[in-house]
Amino acid sequence: MKALRFDGSLRLVDDAPVPRREGEALVEVICAGICNTDLEIVKGYAGFRGTLGHEFVGRVVESSDATLVGRRVVGEINVGCGSCALCRAGDARHCVARTVLGIHGRDGAFAEYLSLPTRNLFEVPDSIDDEEAVFVEPLAAALNIFEQVDIDKATTVAIVGDGKLAQLIVRVMALTGCSLTIIGKHAEKLELAKVTGARRFKLQRDDRIVSIERNGGSIADEKFDVVIETSGSPSGLRLAMNLVRPRGTIVLKSTHHEATPVDLSQVVVNEVKLAGSRCGRFHPAIDLLASRTIDVGPLISERMSLTNGVAAFERAASPSTMKVLMWAK
Amino acid sequence: MKALRFDGSLRLVDDAPVPRREGEALVEVICAGICNTDLEIVKGYAGFRGTLGHEFVGRVVESSDATLVGRRVVGEINVGCGSCALCRAGDARHCVARTVLGIHGRDGAFAEYLSLPTRNLFEVPDSIDDEEAVFVEPLAAALNIFEQVDIDKATTVAIVGDGKLAQLIVRVMALTGCSLTIIGKHAEKLELAKVTGARRFKLQRDDRIVSIERNGGSIADEKFDVVIETSGSPSGLRLAMNLVRPRGTIVLKSTHHEATPVDLSQVVVNEVKLAGSRCGRFHPAIDLLASRTIDVGPLISERMSLTNGVAAFERAASPSTMKVLMWAK
Repeated sequence: MKALRFDGSLRLVDDAPVPRREGEALVEVICAGICNTDLEIVKGYAGFRGTLGHEFVGRVVESSDATLVGRRVVGEINVGCGSCALCRAGDARHCVARTVLGIHGRDGAFAEYLSLPTRNLFEVPDSIDDEEAVFVEPLAAALNIFEQVDIDKATTVAIVGDGKLAQLIVRVMALTGCSLTIIGKHAEKLELAKVTGARRFKLQRDDRIVSIERNGGSIADEKFDVVIETSGSPSGLRLAMNLVRPRGTIVLKSTHHEATPVDLSQVVVNEVKLAGSRCGRFHPAIDLLASRTIDVGPLISERMSLTNGVAAFERAASPSTMKVLMWAK
Repeated sequence: MKALRFDGSLRLVDDAPVPRREGEALVEVICAGICNTDLEIVKGYAGFRGTLGHEFVGRVVESSDATLVGRRVVGEINVGCGSCALCRAGDARHCVARTVLGIHGRDGAFAEYLSLPTRNLFEVPDSIDDEEAVFVEPLAAALNIFEQVDIDKATTVAIVGDGKLAQLIVRVMALTGCSLTIIGKHAEKLELAKVTGARRFKLQRDDRIVSIERNGGSIADEKFDVVIETSGSPSGLRLAMNLVRPRGTIVLKSTHHEATPVDLSQVVVNEVKLAGSRCGRFHPAIDLLASRTIDVGPLISERMSLTNGVAAFERAASPSTMKVLMWAK
């Protein structure tokens, strides 16, 4: 089968074996999305070798659960050992023996077929189309922030970054009624967040932060209860440290490729919390898409085919691009 | 008056003016303690210039509250503006306009006299002697951890470091009944923690962690709910990152002088929280000493006089030394 593999360089192969793992379901991939983590892996993050891709929608071809065959599904990407305390409690996300689809020890979704345990699969309601379904995984990751920090309408929240994940996060945060601000480098991306009602500010090359709205005011003297750092860059973290109030929380949503210098005395003196945040639960994300509470359509930049996977990665790496989808056929 | 001042170098002067600030109390210092923060300031941390020292006991000489004159007191070191929302709520610890005794914008306690607002002073019960009273401030800092993270008898807690603050923290943590482990580099300091019942492990030069007790077992495969980092060193933080469980919390109790490289991808992937922790409330610390629940006597290494202040700092900087006290007279 065709698969987009990384072995130090990224290349499309057409002779990858169909991945059949004992006791697991076989899923024919319909469509998959490129995430920043994929781009980081190609730069060397996580040391992964194999077929990339972890955001997908597909159709079950083989499964021990016969009722699932033929169904359209998305899949939780963490596959636990099944026997440790975490797995027995139904949460494989931190199982130390886990594999992770297209990220760690398991071939991913940029292929014609993938393998996942049946318990990892979630049927997609008809009200969610194929392209929307690809967003279930990153939307779940955005929702996961609520597992790290309490946010309600009394909370002041700033999001650093205006990329793919930031766009999902700003939409999720808007549902809480919190006081919401997004700060990014790209006016056209910030425009995409207008629908949420968030105040939008552009970080200029001279480090000044200016409103992209007329009479949008300034945030020069504001401090926020919660700052969500999505840029994955040292400068983004420094900005987050300057934006967070004493005893506030910085949520780290991006995988940083290298060790980042952090002013820990500022963390101590201001008693700031830094909270890492990764994968979320799928059910709430499916519900938000099925109810059309969140519209991800405007976040799709490009639709390409798996055959053009290498070019799709090049497109996805451009700063002006939002989500790039790859159709398997 | 005599004062131990830092102006790029540390020196004892005998012509410092008696510090009288309008509306504040004048306190004659009896005894003061050297903290790691003092040692860091001498290395350049916080850019402070002036009289050092913030752990003290003294006697009130002048105050707008006549009933306080002649009383023995300790003092909350953060002096707020008195008018911002935080100050009005009775907590000046994060007032942005605050001064901090012997650390920021306000001369400190290594002198014959100091000035603090009357509202910062706490009378010391007779059951606490002078030397014990000097520990109120650092003991409050240890207790402050409970404002950052919930700890009870079901919590597994590891303390990294065996110095002055770590010794107070291990004593405070033992009161919760939590499962308690301390890891340090000095067998004789770890011995001081024996009284708490904590498991004690020595970090060897080859990075192996070995029990200092016979049949004390190994912690090679253990992960902890909460790791309290007191060493203030990059290697201490790396150790803490390796000891904390997924979704666990690392409490940072030490002021790091320089930006520290942190593997933020480990923070994100394991969804770890890093929580800075600084100053605590005085009342609970006074209560613990007054009730003799915590015995700080064994933590005193040296008793010197203010006149020998420079030598006292040299003693305090030695790795084998615990608390060095300076008597003002």
